[in-house]
Order: sequence, then structure tokens, then C-alpha cells
Amino acid sequence: MGNTFGKIFRITTFGESHGAGVGVVIDGCPAGLKITKEEIQIELDRRRPGKSKLVSERKEKDKVEILSGIFENKTLGSPIALLVHNEDADAKSYEDIKNKYRPGHADFVYDAKFGFRDYRGGGRASARETLARVAAGAIAKALLRKMDVKVEAYLVQVGKIKKSRLKIEDYKDEIENAKSNGDSVGGIVGVVIKNLPVGLGEPVFDKLSADLAKALVSIPAVKGFEIGDGFACAEKFGSENNDELEKVDGQIHTKTNHAGGIVGGVSNGEDIVLRIAFKPTSSIVKTQKTVDKDGNEVEISVQGRHDPCIAVRAVPVAEAMVALVLADHYLLNKISRI
Amino acid sequence: MGNTFGKIFRITTFGESHGAGVGVVIDGCPAGLKITKEEIQIELDRRRPGKSKLVSERKEKDKVEILSGIFENKTLGSPIALLVHNEDADAKSYEDIKNKYRPGHADFVYDAKFGFRDYRGGGRASARETLARVAAGAIAKALLRKMDVKVEAYLVQVGKIKKSRLKIEDYKDEIENAKSNGDSVGGIVGVVIKNLPVGLGEPVFDKLSADLAKALVSIPAVKGFEIGDGFACAEKFGSENNDELEKVDGQIHTKTNHAGGIVGGVSNGEDIVLRIAFKPTSSIVKTQKTVDKDGNEVEISVQGRHDPCIAVRAVPVAEAMVALVLADHYLLNKISRI
Amino acid sequence: MGNTFGKIFRITTFGESHGAGVGVVIDGCPAGLKITKEEIQIELDRRRPGKSKLVSERKEKDKVEILSGIFENKTLGSPIALLVHNEDADAKSYEDIKNKYRPGHADFVYDAKFGFRDYRGGGRASARETLARVAAGAIAKALLRKMDVKVEAYLVQVGKIKKSRLKIEDYKDEIENAKSNGDSVGGIVGVVIKNLPVGLGEPVFDKLSADLAKALVSIPAVKGFEIGDGFACAEKFGSENNDELEKVDGQIHTKTNHAGGIVGGVSNGEDIVLRIAFKPTSSIVKTQKTVDKDGNEVEISVQGRHDPCIAVRAVPVAEAMVALVLADHYLLNKISRI
Amino acid sequence: MGNTFGKIFRITTFGESHGAGVGVVIDGCPAGLKITKEEIQIELDRRRPGKSKLVSERKEKDKVEILSGIFENKTLGSPIALLVHNEDADAKSYEDIKNKYRPGHADFVYDAKFGFRDYRGGGRASARETLARVAAGAIAKALLRKMDVKVEAYLVQVGKIKKSRLKIEDYKDEIENAKSNGDSVGGIVGVVIKNLPVGLGEPVFDKLSADLAKALVSIPAVKGFEIGDGFACAEKFGSENNDELEKVDGQIHTKTNHAGGIVGGVSNGEDIVLRIAFKPTSSIVKTQKTVDKDGNEVEISVQGRHDPCIAVRAVPVAEAMVALVLADHYLLNKISRI
Repeated sequence: MGNTFGKIFRITTFGESHGAGVGVVIDGCPAGLKITKEEIQIELDRRRPGKSKLVSERKEKDKVEILSGIFENKTLGSPIALLVHNEDADAKSYEDIKNKYRPGHADFVYDAKFGFRDYRGGGRASARETLARVAAGAIAKALLRKMDVKVEAYLVQVGKIKKSRLKIEDYKDEIENAKSNGDSVGGIVGVVIKNLPVGLGEPVFDKLSADLAKALVSIPAVKGFEIGDGFACAEKFGSENNDELEKVDGQIHTKTNHAGGIVGGVSNGEDIVLRIAFKPTSSIVKTQKTVDKDGNEVEISVQGRHDPCIAVRAVPVAEAMVALVLADHYLLNKISRI
Repeated sequence: MGNTFGKIFRITTFGESHGAGVGVVIDGCPAGLKITKEEIQIELDRRRPGKSKLVSERKEKDKVEILSGIFENKTLGSPIALLVHNEDADAKSYEDIKNKYRPGHADFVYDAKFGFRDYRGGGRASARETLARVAAGAIAKALLRKMDVKVEAYLVQVGKIKKSRLKIEDYKDEIENAKSNGDSVGGIVGVVIKNLPVGLGEPVFDKLSADLAKALVSIPAVKGFEIGDGFACAEKFGSENNDELEKVDGQIHTKTNHAGGIVGGVSNGEDIVLRIAFKPTSSIVKTQKTVDKDGNEVEISVQGRHDPCIAVRAVPVAEAMVALVLADHYLLNKISRI
Repeated sequence: MGNTFGKIFRITTFGESHGAGVGVVIDGCPAGLKITKEEIQIELDRRRPGKSKLVSERKEKDKVEILSGIFENKTLGSPIALLVHNEDADAKSYEDIKNKYRPGHADFVYDAKFGFRDYRGGGRASARETLARVAAGAIAKALLRKMDVKVEAYLVQVGKIKKSRLKIEDYKDEIENAKSNGDSVGGIVGVVIKNLPVGLGEPVFDKLSADLAKALVSIPAVKGFEIGDGFACAEKFGSENNDELEKVDGQIHTKTNHAGGIVGGVSNGEDIVLRIAFKPTSSIVKTQKTVDKDGNEVEISVQGRHDPCIAVRAVPVAEAMVALVLADHYLLNKISRI
Repeated sequence: MGNTFGKIFRITTFGESHGAGVGVVIDGCPAGLKITKEEIQIELDRRRPGKSKLVSERKEKDKVEILSGIFENKTLGSPIALLVHNEDADAKSYEDIKNKYRPGHADFVYDAKFGFRDYRGGGRASARETLARVAAGAIAKALLRKMDVKVEAYLVQVGKIKKSRLKIEDYKDEIENAKSNGDSVGGIVGVVIKNLPVGLGEPVFDKLSADLAKALVSIPAVKGFEIGDGFACAEKFGSENNDELEKVDGQIHTKTNHAGGIVGGVSNGEDIVLRIAFKPTSSIVKTQKTVDKDGNEVEISVQGRHDPCIAVRAVPVAEAMVALVLADHYLLNKISRI
């Protein structure tokens, strides 16, 4: 259960890491939106492994196939189904860990919940699942582009290196250091949304902030979410934290943006500013202690081609999830008043 | 829109701060659950204002009325409707701010979104709305008690004072200081869930962590959420952060709990540990600059009986939201395998 | 479960026939819609029992109370909660049937499903539940009025008397005959929707026809639904049944209306024409054989003030359910294309 | 929108008749259910065209591909994605009708709703869409088999020939007569559900009868639905229509089954008996008058390989939709009481 996301602009994803493929059905996308296969592929390519030593070396082409919903490069108003076949699924390398529970992984809880699991990889828990989110996000982004809304994510921290908007190269040493030790390292991804109109988000449960929190915390390995000044708010006084309003060029806006662009759950027209924390990749070569299915103590060294810092490839995933939330709320907001 | 929360154990809340009352309908609660009006009232009393100088002095009895769904102190399997009438709604004190946009409040965005608003208070944006969450949460807690699951929230930080599990009195000076300056102060609430069985949560979007994030970030004034080691994970190596498994007394569990009790979105049987950050209350007496509806620059001093630290009364609200998520996932998990 | 209806314009009803009251929360109604308490009351009065000998003589004032969501006679965009207190709930008359399963009623299945039931009446199975539908329907009708859409239902058959659009008096003899025999009688209600724009309804599962079918078959005692020529279609050839298109006054429409205004699940601009069949009221004075909770054979004569022909008072209920479906699809259709 | 069906056992379908393929994602199927590709294929083969002159002669192999969710012939608890590629999609034959609105078809309403359409066939309105329902229904049937529940549909009427449970051959003349005239003919499909336990269905909106009505009326060409005695109830007295209860072999059941197995929206353990009416296929060779996109009067003769009686191939589709509703309610009912 729980493989559908969104209220109007709804996506349903499917696919195990070592099954036939991974895909998504997008329902609720308005008809008449222009979108090409190339635009979807560009987003997938941003997420694709195998491009450098800083990410997983799994060789996947990740070529998207459009199964339905798009005709003559325009959305039909019918469900858009996108499929990426799995290619470089090397199940043999998992044979060793078939019965061992990898620390930090879902192996144990899946067995407990479902009675068994697809042991050939993470199955549904694999970060490969995020491919479907990125494909769907490409459609959402096309919708947002029409409103001139921009969603940009970037690494703001890896391990102890933290500066805003560094390029990936600036984190190179930190990542390679972890990797060469057979280890992995955590990170933080920042997101900025620009040009979002006032009024997106619903007052109580479906606050824009709450839906963004769910969207982003649902990404594998995310352990924290904050908006605007986030946890730093706790130390502040109201008079420091409130954003005063003013009118400039006929438009009401706030002088500061401690709120991060959302007030009372609704966008206020300022930039939306978010941060999400990623734990270090659970799969590491370093030997760890664990148990097997029968509860015997065993040692494990997780081989395979894993990302030394999962936050790196999560950047386009974060953008995709944010775009999906915004597309949904954009449509919902169109019917918020007579 | 967006006033319903949950998939199976679903609540729908209603009510403006200065309307007839605030209430909730709970649908999907199994039949046969024992619950008394007193159990619900106890939770509401924990949240009730007017009990000390550290919270809002608004005098509300907040007496709950059961309109349906409970018969002879047992749930019928039909929707449970709970209503609390508003009593001390002093709309006159809001007449001054009818046309001024209070900094940090939803006044401006509501006008922009809906075309007008109930200016007699926060309307739907008022923290009074959380009363309905607490009432519903009391039912969820009754369900969890049957499984011996415990949800406990407590203040872990107010302003610059941070220790784990302090009593409210330990924060007294920090709060009174803010109040005496006509100001407010932020805080952090921690939550611990004990005895939760393995297996709650769904793999992809409806991860237990993601649903908890949404639930908690939907509480007014929440600006951050973290689970387990949260943002601190970013600085760590995988070998530090992974929780190794062992078998003790016939039960598989983890030696450490950096994950905070959730792996791959699914509970692993360890304590679930969360933290949420609250901004300082937006309503402050201190004079602030803002604009009125017509965009004129004005000054504002928000009078009324506001909480100097909203995090204080948010403790039972956080527990309620967590309980609602757990009740829902408990029911969902019952049908996760043949 | 299952007390919520609609996707965007969503209602959640609550209340047992012999509890504190019956009510509804409407979420998703756009802000700014003008509606007065009187408009809601007018619809409730149409459904109210006790007005003639042809309907239940239960004396209920059925006065509606607006708890939230409407301010200065306009919808706020927040949930609209409406409550009607139960008054003439004479539980004593039900003491006799506490343990007997009334034929045609839900007594047995509720006990089997929920383990117990509110034996003081039908509880949630009572036709009194439809009051909440009618109250919500009044809001939906206000929305439809803005588009000039008209929904009209009327009795087209009672027992063996069938003519289209008869007044209730024309069925008087048939109903009084049943009643004087301690019996009840079935009927058929027709619905016509006028001025509906082209384009409402979604292609596959949420066809306008399918949602109308669900809405109407969910009314207590409904056993059949048909649209346009309905069951008569089975005997026809395609060349007889297809509605040819023509253009008149610049507008494409069909020359005939065998389809009843819906093609491929989507409204085509013609009148929508429906019919629903009601079984005779299950509660009859005539002695019937049945069993009690322990399975003992017993006789039963259902006393109380029951409708001799439930179809009579179902007319405004049918209108309400249709209006709710149309309001929902009207909003959905607003976001069906870029 | 509207391509998802079900609350827990949820299916989302996709695919146009002349696109790459048609498929379905099933989310919410419990883990551990045994199912083979062959079992799915058997159901698809029952629906497949091209098997006789009584149905469409379109040659489709309709071979199903399992993309996810099934591992070692057991459901994983993750979404099950099934895909059937389109093969014999002869778009050329549709070039003629690209701009003409076929009577009885959705061409005109789709253009009006979405602004354009996939003119190469019915697109999403094609009966080919039902293939995905049948594939999903095969999974639902596997779940029902474990409870020994049987769902059987059969033709009970074609044109003027009506007898219960005739074999398809008995309708041969009626169908061939229509076909030879370049025409089509309507029909009625009956459904019987056996061995369903007491208690499925929810009291108010999600009555088992209401969900069945929606499910079945959402099948293309369905114009009527009735349960038990259906429309015939209208003529009856309560004393004739009520089903008296008795206890036989320790089990409470009804002596008669006018209700068709559902009382108050909940299954009562008796056979569930339904009937649905199908209009004659809209696509006919006989010349009809219509308009083109610009409103010009034109004549049309719909060529192609269409079913002369759509009710024939709808038999497995009706079974599938019923099975989907039952699987969903079976799971929902498991959590209806403590």
C-alpha cells in the first residue's frame, strides 16, 4: 500500500530494483500540456547512476518509455504511464546477503511485515524506486514552467563540509574519503522555490509545508526536514522571527523571510526555502555485525555499486517531489473560490 | 479543502476560533473500542488555555459533547462526532485588526486565497483548531492502549534553555521573560513512542516517518521535523550511523537507535524518537510594522490572550497527531499480508 | 467507515437515529458562495417527516444549526459543519425489538459485522441519516444555481400506479391502501438535470453515470438505477439507440436523447435523465416471522411511525445526492485542461 | 482523472486503444497471495477479441507482462504492474473519422472536455480499456478464491431473447442478424456471487450495493443496474418483499432472497444477485447522420472490427469489476471491529 501520492495530480509508482522495470502512472495531469520524451529523459539523466566515481557505478541507461497519456507531444488528460526497464540488475551479487539483515536497511522489517521479500536487492526499498518519482516530476515541472515557477535543489552539506550552493566538486574529497574507507557519508540538500504565486496550500492538514514535509521525508534516507529558519526558530523571540509586511511596486510582501515562504500553511509569494537531511548510505563495505533470518550472529560486508553519499543523487529526486506537491496544490488552488 | 487526515482511521475537523464551536468527525475507528467521555475530556484539559500564566489566559471550559458513534461507552463502528462549543470568543478585541495584516499570521494569505476571511480571530488558522485534533487523538490513544503502545511528548527546548525532558517549570523564566517584554519565544517538542510493534508504515510514500512528518508539520507554528539523529546524520559516516542488529531474548533488535525506530519507512520495534521545532507565537504585543488590506503602512500591537510560547500547549497536540498516525497505520498493517 | 462522499466537494456525515443528532461536514466547497441558513432549512423541510399521513408521523423540527464554515452568509472555504439535533427519539418503542432481527433491516448484518449495534432504532441504517445528505445537498445546489443548473426529482411510480411527473396526491390511494393494511409499498423516483454544461465526468471509473449510480444506490432502500433508456436498451439495435448529432444555433447537440445526457461517462449538454427504484419500507406492522439474537424463531410486528412508501420522502434526498455529484464534477472539470 | 478504483485494494489503469499498450497497477494487495501469470492470462483470454464471429474480429494476442509486485509466484505486498502491448492497432482505418463525431461515442464530449483527443480510436473510451480491469480482476479473484467466494457472470438477454443462463450459442441468431444488417444489439448480463461471508459493505455511502453499482456502471455501455428484485420492487408490498429470517443448521439466513444478498448495504450471507443492462455497440456500419468538428452535417458509416453485441465480451469484465469490489470490501471488513 501507499504507492500513490497527491490528491489531484496523483502519481502511482511501481517496480522492484531487480524486477522487470520501474515506472509510474500520473493521473490528473490536465490535458493540453506540452511535454516531450526528451524533457523527461533529461531529468532521468540527472539522477542516473554510473556517471562519476562520486555516485553508484551501476550502469543503467534508464531510458524512459511513454506507454500512454501523451499524443503528439501533448498530454491527453488520460493517465500518463512511464516505464524504465531494469538492465544492469546483477542479482548474483545479492545471493550472499539473501538471508542476512543489512544494518540500516529494510530487510528485517520487510520480512516481518510481509512474511518474505524480494531478496535480490532492496526491492521496493531500493533508491532505484526514486527513478519513477523523477520521471513523474518531469511532468510536474512542465506544468510549473507554464507559471514560471522554478524549483532548484542543491547540496548544502556533505559530512562536515557545509556551505550554501557548493558545486558537487567541492564535496569531492569528503565523499572519496568515505568511499576509500569502505564507508559512506551523510548530507543536506537545500531547495528553493521561486515565483510561486500567493495562495497555494490548504489551511489545516494539507498545509503546503506539511505536504512538502511528507513528500521529502518519503525519500529514502531522509531523516529531517525544515522550512525557513527551521530548528533555529526555537531559540528566537517572536519579534525577531515575524516577517513584517510592506508594499512594494503595488505588491504586498514581507521584508524578511524567516518563514521560508509559507504562512499558516499557505504560500505568501516569497521564495520557499527548505532543507532536508540525509543519513549516510546504509550499504557499506566495512564489516558490520548483524543477524541472519534465523537470528544467528553474523558479519556482513555489503558489496555492490552503492552511492557513497546518497544525498548527491537525491538532488533531482528532491526537486521532483517538490514539483509534484506544487503541481497538485496549484490545481487544488484553482478551485478554492467561486 | 484538506480538513481530513488519515487513510482508514480518518478524521475531519471543522470550526473557526470565533464561530459556534470546533469539532471533529472520526470515521474508520473499529467497533467495540471502549472509550468514555472523561477520557476525551482529560486530553482536552491538558491542552486547555487559562490554566497558568505560561499559557494563553483565554477562559474556555472546552467541554466535549459526543454527538454520535459511541453507545454505552463503546464505539459503534459509525462516525464519532465530537463538538466543543466556543465560549470566551471575544470578537471585539479583534475589531482593531480587522483590516491589518498581522506579521507571521495567515491574514494576508487567506484574503489572497479565499477573497475574504473571518477576521474575528485566526478563523481556521487559530491554534484553537488543534482542539479537534486532541479530541480525536484521545480516541486513537484508546486504540493504542489496547496494544500497550505509549506516546509521550514533552518540551525539550524553550528559547536558549535546552535539556531533555524538563518540566514546564524549568522553562518558566524564559517564558515569563518573553511575555513581560510583550514578546514570545520558540521551542522544541520531543516525542517518544514505546512498544510499537514491528511492521507499521508502508514502503514508499506512506512511510511511517513521512506520515509522522506531515502530521506534525501540519500543527500550527511547526517549522522543523527530525527523526532519530535527524539533521545530525548529515555529519556522520555510515559505519557510525547504521544500527547493528542482534538477537536478545529471542527477539531481533538493534544495538543502537540512530534511526529513531523507523527503517525504510517501517517501524522496527525500537523506540520511535522525534523532535519538532516551533516558531515563537506570531501574536505579540510589541509594536510591529505591517500593511493594511489596502496596502497602507501601519503599526500593529496584537492584543488578546496569546500563548507566550506556543510549544507549551502543543505538547498534547503533538501526542494526538502521532497517535492518529499510529492508529491509522496499525489498522493498515493488519491487512498487509494474507 | 465509508461516511465520506465526493472527491473535491466532499461530505462526511454522522449521527444515529436515536443519538444526540445528525450532521454533516462539507469540505472543499469554494469560498465566496452565498448561502443562508434558510436555504438549507427549506431543503430539510421538504424531507421532514410528520407533514401528512402519507409519510412518517415522527415529529421532528429538524432545525439546522450552522457550526462553521459560513460567515456573513458566505462560505469561508473552510469546512461547513451542519447539525440537526434529534428530538422526538422515542427509544422506548424500540425496546421490544432490541433482540429481534427485523426482516429487511440491517439489524442482523450490523450485529454480525460490528459485534453489537445501537438497538434504539436503525442507528446509522435509519433513513434519518439522509437528513445530513439533504443539508449538504442544499450547499451543492447553491453552487449549481450559479451555473443555472437545475436538478429536479419526482415520483414516477408507486406500486402499480405509474405515470411521469404525477403529484403526490395521485398516489394517495395506493399509499393509504398499503398503510391501512399495516403494509408498505415500493416506488420509482425520476430525476432530470437541466442546463448542465458539456464535459462533466471522467472517462474511466469516475464516469458521471457511475458516480450518480453510486450516489443514488447508496440511498437507503434503492434497488435499481438506470440512465436514459436504461434496461430498455437491451432490446434495441444500435441504429435505434444511437443519438445522431446536429448543430442548431451554433451548438452541437443530439437529435434524440436515448443516452440520457451522458456519453462515455461525460455529460453531453442534453438533459440528464435517471430513474431509481425503491423497495417498499421494511418496517411494517403486519406480523412477520423472524429470529432473535439467539436464533429462536419469533414473530414481529414493527410498531413506530414509519413511512408507508419511502420513495415519497426520498425525492429531496435523490436531488441532494445528484447535486453533490454534480458539484464535485463541476469542480473537477475546472482543472481538466491547461 | 478518475483512473483509480478502490479504497484499499486499489487499481489504477492506463492506456489508449491505439497507443503503446494498456495496463494496470494494483496497490494494496496483501503480500503472500499465490498467483501465476497463467491465471491472469486465462481471464484475459476470456475477454480477448477475434475468437468468433459473434465478437470483434480485432486480432490481439493480449499477452500479459508482469512488471512488478510478484516474485516467485507470490505477491510481494508492493504494487503489481501488469502490461499488455497493443499489436493490431490499425490507425489507418480511423483516418476517415478523425474529424467526424460518431453517434453514441465520446468523440464530441472528449473534444469539448479536453480540447483535443487521440482520434486514432476511442482512446481511453475504447472498450480495450477494460482489458486492464480484467487483468486486475484476476488478482482479486485469486484473493477471493482463498475465501471460497465465487463470482459468475453470464448473458441473460440479447435483444429480445431473454432466458436466464443461456449459452452464448443461444443468442447467435440475434447477434448475427444485427451484424448482417450493419447494426448492433443490446443485452443484459447477470452476476451471481456465492459464499460471500456476512458483513461486507459499509453502512452509508460505501454500501456494498453502491460500490457494485459504481463499478458496473463504469463499464463502457452500461445503462442500468439492479440488485435482487431491482425495479420490480417498486410494484411490491413490504410484506411481499421482506425476506424473513430463520435459523438452519446453526446459521441465520433468509428464507427468500428478494434483497439479492445485501441488506442496509451489507452482505447478509445469501447469494448476491445483480443485473446490468448494456446498450447496443455504438459503432455500426449502417449510415448515420452526424456533424464534423466544424459543425458541418455529414454522414458516417463506422468501419472497423467492432463487437455486434458488446454485452458478450463484457461478461468477464463484469466479473472482474465485481471481484475488485469484493476484494476491497473483504479487506476493509477485516478492520471493522476490535
